[in-house]
Amino acid sequence: MVVNDDLDFNKQMLFLIEIDKLKSIERRTKLINGSRQENDAEHSWHLAVMGLILHQYSNQEVDLFKVIKMLLIHDIVEIDAGDTFAYDSTGHLDKFDREQRAATRIFGLLPEHQGAELIDLWLEYDRKETNEAKFAASLDSLQPLIHNHLNQGETWKKNDITSDTVLDRNCKIAKGSERLWEYAQEMIEKSVEQGFLSK
Amino acid sequence: MVVNDDLDFNKQMLFLIEIDKLKSIERRTKLINGSRQENDAEHSWHLAVMGLILHQYSNQEVDLFKVIKMLLIHDIVEIDAGDTFAYDSTGHLDKFDREQRAATRIFGLLPEHQGAELIDLWLEYDRKETNEAKFAASLDSLQPLIHNHLNQGETWKKNDITSDTVLDRNCKIAKGSERLWEYAQEMIEKSVEQGFLSK
Repeated sequence: MVVNDDLDFNKQMLFLIEIDKLKSIERRTKLINGSRQENDAEHSWHLAVMGLILHQYSNQEVDLFKVIKMLLIHDIVEIDAGDTFAYDSTGHLDKFDREQRAATRIFGLLPEHQGAELIDLWLEYDRKETNEAKFAASLDSLQPLIHNHLNQGETWKKNDITSDTVLDRNCKIAKGSERLWEYAQEMIEKSVEQGFLSK
Repeated sequence: MVVNDDLDFNKQMLFLIEIDKLKSIERRTKLINGSRQENDAEHSWHLAVMGLILHQYSNQEVDLFKVIKMLLIHDIVEIDAGDTFAYDSTGHLDKFDREQRAATRIFGLLPEHQGAELIDLWLEYDRKETNEAKFAASLDSLQPLIHNHLNQGETWKKNDITSDTVLDRNCKIAKGSERLWEYAQEMIEKSVEQGFLSK
């Protein structure tokens, strides 16, 4: 038993050391103060706190702890697969394959039962079918909108994104939370009015 | 009711925008790859995932969701109070006062019931009396040890820290987890052997 415990412990530490790399995976979105691009680890932290604070606005009742776990691990696959920009349609074509290979490798570092649990959680998030996955995904879409709105649309301008594309890519927020989608639409409208986003 | 809902919603969004600043609060510890200093937001994310993976090693049974919530919010006060280096004894003298003022201001942005809940959670963490707080704190001490060991003691060397000081400052890990303290001691020993940490 001691041997197994040590084996498991070593696997767990290997995984926890490996995921430090998520802090070096850059997203397209900048911090709200515009000083630099956000990384996946701090983004995941922000989403988890958003989940704690905003869960009352989920369309359906959710197991909040499950939502938080999903948000904490949902981007770990990007250590291998990289961040796919929300508005990159080509990048989305093979996104699932790249990410599934990554999930197998990275969560596979863990003891079998823990690795399997995290792969299941990641797949559940990716499929967006359960209430928890829908709500978690709505936060993942909302957060960069807030950043882009508050840093005057820098990422939108740089990538020639129009308000129609933003509305089209983000209307899925409503699947997790009508209230948050209402808020997102207000922000998109204001961004157009203030010239941060072209029509 | 609609008015109250809107008021609460606006307060929640203000808080979630404010805490983006945690991504710009630098710690002394560098990333494992040594490329740059870690910030508080990504550090909090790393600890939360450590909690999910390592909770079996807590000395006492814990409410894991509570541990995760503590870890997610434990450093938010540093937006105002700044990071106090673990080996800075002067900085620790007025740490609690600085952090308490910060907690009042930042968690006070939230609707009253949510703000009060997070202040209570932060105070519980800070007092290190409950099983959840002890275990959460042991992760908070262990994580920078792992980083310092793996990036060849850069922060230790720069600040003339000796192994006695590291042992002395971190023996509190044992209060939350004997197993993690055992692991920490092995790392400290290896760091001395490998010349990353002076005796």
